[in-house]
Parts: sequence; C-alpha cells; structure tokens
Amino acid sequence: MAEVKNKRVILKDYVTGFPKESDMNIVDSTITLKLPQGSDNVVLVKNLYLSCDPYMRTLMSNPQGSINPRAYTPQSAIAGYGVSKVLESGHKDYKEGDLVWGITNWEEYSLIPAAQIHFKIENKDVPLSYYTGILGMPGMTAYTGFFEVGSPKKGENVFVSAASGAVGQLVGQFAKLHGCYVVGSAGTKEKVDLLKNKFGYDEAINYKEEQDLNAVLKRHFPEGIDIYFENVGGKTLDAVLLNMRLNGRIPVCGMISQYNLTEPEGVTNLAHIIYKRVLLQGFIVADFYHLYPKFLEFVLPHIREGKVVYVEDIAEGLEKGPEALVGIFKGHNVGKQVLVVSRE
Amino acid sequence: MAEVKNKRVILKDYVTGFPKESDMNIVDSTITLKLPQGSDNVVLVKNLYLSCDPYMRTLMSNPQGSINPRAYTPQSAIAGYGVSKVLESGHKDYKEGDLVWGITNWEEYSLIPAAQIHFKIENKDVPLSYYTGILGMPGMTAYTGFFEVGSPKKGENVFVSAASGAVGQLVGQFAKLHGCYVVGSAGTKEKVDLLKNKFGYDEAINYKEEQDLNAVLKRHFPEGIDIYFENVGGKTLDAVLLNMRLNGRIPVCGMISQYNLTEPEGVTNLAHIIYKRVLLQGFIVADFYHLYPKFLEFVLPHIREGKVVYVEDIAEGLEKGPEALVGIFKGHNVGKQVLVVSRE
Repeated sequence: MAEVKNKRVILKDYVTGFPKESDMNIVDSTITLKLPQGSDNVVLVKNLYLSCDPYMRTLMSNPQGSINPRAYTPQSAIAGYGVSKVLESGHKDYKEGDLVWGITNWEEYSLIPAAQIHFKIENKDVPLSYYTGILGMPGMTAYTGFFEVGSPKKGENVFVSAASGAVGQLVGQFAKLHGCYVVGSAGTKEKVDLLKNKFGYDEAINYKEEQDLNAVLKRHFPEGIDIYFENVGGKTLDAVLLNMRLNGRIPVCGMISQYNLTEPEGVTNLAHIIYKRVLLQGFIVADFYHLYPKFLEFVLPHIREGKVVYVEDIAEGLEKGPEALVGIFKGHNVGKQVLVVSRE
Repeated sequence: MAEVKNKRVILKDYVTGFPKESDMNIVDSTITLKLPQGSDNVVLVKNLYLSCDPYMRTLMSNPQGSINPRAYTPQSAIAGYGVSKVLESGHKDYKEGDLVWGITNWEEYSLIPAAQIHFKIENKDVPLSYYTGILGMPGMTAYTGFFEVGSPKKGENVFVSAASGAVGQLVGQFAKLHGCYVVGSAGTKEKVDLLKNKFGYDEAINYKEEQDLNAVLKRHFPEGIDIYFENVGGKTLDAVLLNMRLNGRIPVCGMISQYNLTEPEGVTNLAHIIYKRVLLQGFIVADFYHLYPKFLEFVLPHIREGKVVYVEDIAEGLEKGPEALVGIFKGHNVGKQVLVVSRE
C-alpha cells in the first residue's frame, strides 16, 4: 500500500511565557493508510477539524512545577480535541466511515488508541465542527461547570469571564435559559457586541477599557455575584472576590490569564471567601463525560430551534495551526477557534 | 438598687494594620445590677471567661472594604464569645444562676439580648473556660470545618496551619481520631513540641524556620495533601496549593496572616486547583450550630477519657484583655487564649 503525505504540527521544545508560532514546526511526514498488523484497539483516522483550546498551553510547559501533570513530548506532534473520520478500525465499536470526536494528533492522519475517542458522532444535521465546540469538550465544560459545579438557581446573578470564547458564550446562553441575570467580560468591542447582541448577555464589560473592574462589577451586581464562571484568573478574579454574594460559587474552569506568566499574578482578596461562605471548585470536564447523552438531549433541540447559537472562528489548513493556537492567548479569536484540516 | 463598678474594654477607633494595646482603653463605668423595666428578651449577666479569637480583628476594621461586613462601634466596648452567669433574666429560657455561652461584651457585667446567648451550659464537670474553646465556638469550628466541610476519609493526609491554636489543636486531634495522617505547622519550638507530644500530630513544622515550605510539604506529603485546614492564608496557602492531591479539600476557616496587612499578600498558585479538582470552601461556624448537641455527644466522652486534650493560655483580669487579644496576632499565645474576668 502506498504511503501518503502526512503533514504534522510539532512542538519544538517546552514553552516558557507566551507561546509563539515559532515554538512549533510544520513537518511533512508520510503514513501508510493501513492499520499495521496487531493494531488491536487502535484506529486509523483522517482528521477533519481540530480544536484550539487554552488548556493546550498547560501541556506545552515542562510538567515539573506546571499546573498540569501531563505535557506534550518535545519534537512530537501536539494533540488535542478533534473530529475525525475512521479509515480503518482495530476496535469493535468503530468501523470505516464513522465520524468520531476525541483526542487526536495535529496531523492529517493519525493512528490513535480507541480509548482516545470520546464519542461516535450520531447527529449529523449540525455542522461537524460543532463537535470541537458546542457539542464537544467546550460545550460539556460549560454545561457541567455551570449546572453541576455552579448549582444555579433561577434569578441568580452570574458573571462570566472570557465570555465570548468557546466555553463562555455557552455559559452565558445556558444561564439566560435558566432564568439568570448574566454579565460577561471580554477584551474587544467586537466581542462585547457579540455578548449583548448575539449571546443575550444582559450586560457586557470590555475589561481592557476599565480602570476599576471592582467598581464596574459593583454597578452591574449591586446585590453581588452568585456564580462566577472562572476562565481567566488574576486581576479579574481579584475584583470578583470583592463582589461575591453570600454562598456564592466559583466553578474554576481555567485561568488563561495566568498560563503564560512565568510569575503568576497574586490574588489578594481570597480572605473574602470566608464570611461570604464562597466555594471555589476546580473542575475538569473529563470527570463528567458520563453526562454527555443528557447534555445532547438538552442542547440539540436548542441548537435546532436557534435558541442557542455558536460562533466559531475558523482557520483553514493545518499549516495555520500554530498561528490559530497562539492567537487564542492573545484574544485574536472571536468565538471558538477551530482549525480545519479537511472538510471530509 | 446600688450601682456597681463595671470595667469595660473600649475600642478607640477603627484599626489599620496590626492592632496595638493602645487601640483599646480600659474604662470604668457603672451598672445597676437590675434589669431595667421592659427588658423583655434581655438578660443581665456577669461575664466570667472571655475568648480572644482571630476573627475579632476583622471587626476592628472599618467595614468599608473589610472581609467582614460587620464591625465594632468605635468608643464602645468590644464584644466576643464568652461564658457568663445569668444574674437576672427577661427571657423564659434563662433564669438566675444559669451559666451560658455566646456573644457578650468585654466588661464585667452586660445587658445582652437573649438572642446573643448561644447555649445554656449543662455539663459542668469540665472546666468552664472550655466553653470559650473546645466546647464553644473554636471546638465547633474545628468539628464542622473538618468533618462537614472537609469530608475526611480514614487514611487521608491532613495539613493544619496555626496547628496549636484554639481551633488547630482540635483539628489535629480529630483527624488522628478519624485515622488520618496529620501534619501541623506553628511558629515556635514550644508549639511544635506541643503538636507532636501533646496533640499527637504525626509531624510538625516550625514555619518560621523553613526557607522552602513547598519542599518541606513535599517531604511530609509525598502523595499530596487531601485536606488542608486553612487558618492562615498567604505564603502557607501558596505552598499548600503546590501540594494538594487530586480531589483535595481546603476548608477556609480563617486567614490570620492577612488580617493585619493593609496590602494582602498575593496567592500565586491558585491555578493548581484546576487539574487537581481542589475545593476551597469558606465557612462560618455560625451556620452549623444546629450540630452542637451532636458535637457534645462526640467530644465530651473524649475529653472525660483524656483522648482529646485542650491547651489554654489564660490571662487573668479584664485589664489584661488588650494585651491578650493583641498577642494572638503575634503568636504569643500557646493554645487557646482565654481571658478570665471572674471565676464565678
């Protein structure tokens, strides 16, 4: 069987500080499109859509001292969530032609352990790329972080940072569907417009234009914040801690503002959680994938009826991968950053 | 009826930074030892034992911007937990001669709303002063913070800061009774000796002598910390966050290291709670007083059998109050700081 070209995105070495495009290389390798003999539980896939997610930065660091105990292997292809088509399967649950989503490598074709596949894609009346976003890890993160960790009640006051991002845009919409008052923050006028006019946030803050986030939060939340969906950490968290309401909850999904700092910013207002009885709960979506069928039941009708929308920022071609991935740490993406490797 | 002298401890003004003895005044006033007419639900008490507790510092600050929404009134007597004897009662639940514990004023005699009394003291075979400590608010704080918020399991690894203090010495003993491995930190050799030789801690750290608390914690907790009972905040919390185990819990009881700082220290390692799925939960013992009868059932037999001990640091006389109270923020107390106003 003939070999075909297989472009890949390689991490050169562990990254310190903000990642740069030059931390990655696009390399041409080859692959034989046939499962090697003895490939039980391995699946050969063609990668279609790859997901650019903030947590990937934590895998670029030397794991020693990193917040993430796992890390990419330097000189190897990076990996992440993606939508792939099965070309040949060594696992009984998958067969040629199946569409799947899960963890795959940043390359055109991958041999992946079947255990890395999260779910077979059954509902194909929605854009396939959605399985890297609203119907994939970010969707589940928003859903479980808000509902399972945040325990929202109708009428509560919700604040979301990185509010137009892959996860944030959904937290805002889910919170509105749940009858909450929702304010989001983002870093450009365009994103703030999206928050109010596309995602239905009650109020939106451009944090880059505010000198005193504490005062802004006090204005938007005179009674305090019941749920802060934490995506960014640092100064935003510090201002939020001054504005939490009694028995408030902070699902800690991520702290993107801190991932690229060699010296993280100090959070000075933590003592405010004592009298307010505030809960901070770090969570990882992987602990909640058993809820995926329930999530699909909830979200698919909303998508079909247009009651939940999803904004994607699509980069075309694997060679755009480094730029797209690096861009999310500068806030270049508007909505969920997707990388198209191939549309079929 | 004749008036009697009634010495009181007055807060001069809101305090900034470390409190000083000179922030308080001892003043002589007088009181008629008779309930005024129409004093429904008011009780006249003689104060016997007063409790010096870290949270009292939060009441000395201007409430504007403070972590505590309540504050003492400048030029009035400060208040706190205490054991008192009822001289005359305007409330049906109390009668002359009853011993009670709850919130009272720092003075010899007080007229207090009955609602400020937490419990009538029924078990008198233990030192009365214990109702400011092991059998009072600090005991309940240790019990509910550890068991209700911390959800300990046998065999788990527990770290306690301010470990010889009013609350910490009990958390350590409760954790040992529960079958946990327990390490405590304190700030003098004498306290560290108490931790190991009196309270049964497995290991004890003198944090003032350690340059690298992170390394010390790594040595004592090679598998990580399941429960960190947080009394101090700041640098200790930062080192702990690097050493939490998967699904660890941090009941946040207090952050005494931060109460006196005009600029709190920054906690830089919060992002470590994400992958470790760590919970931080601020709590206030007042939410748990319904568990007091259950707590007494648990702790009284242990006290009587000598299986739980309690170390008190006793100051004699109301005029020693300011010194005793200020001392707990300098770590002068060894064990629970009690102030004796009168022994009967």
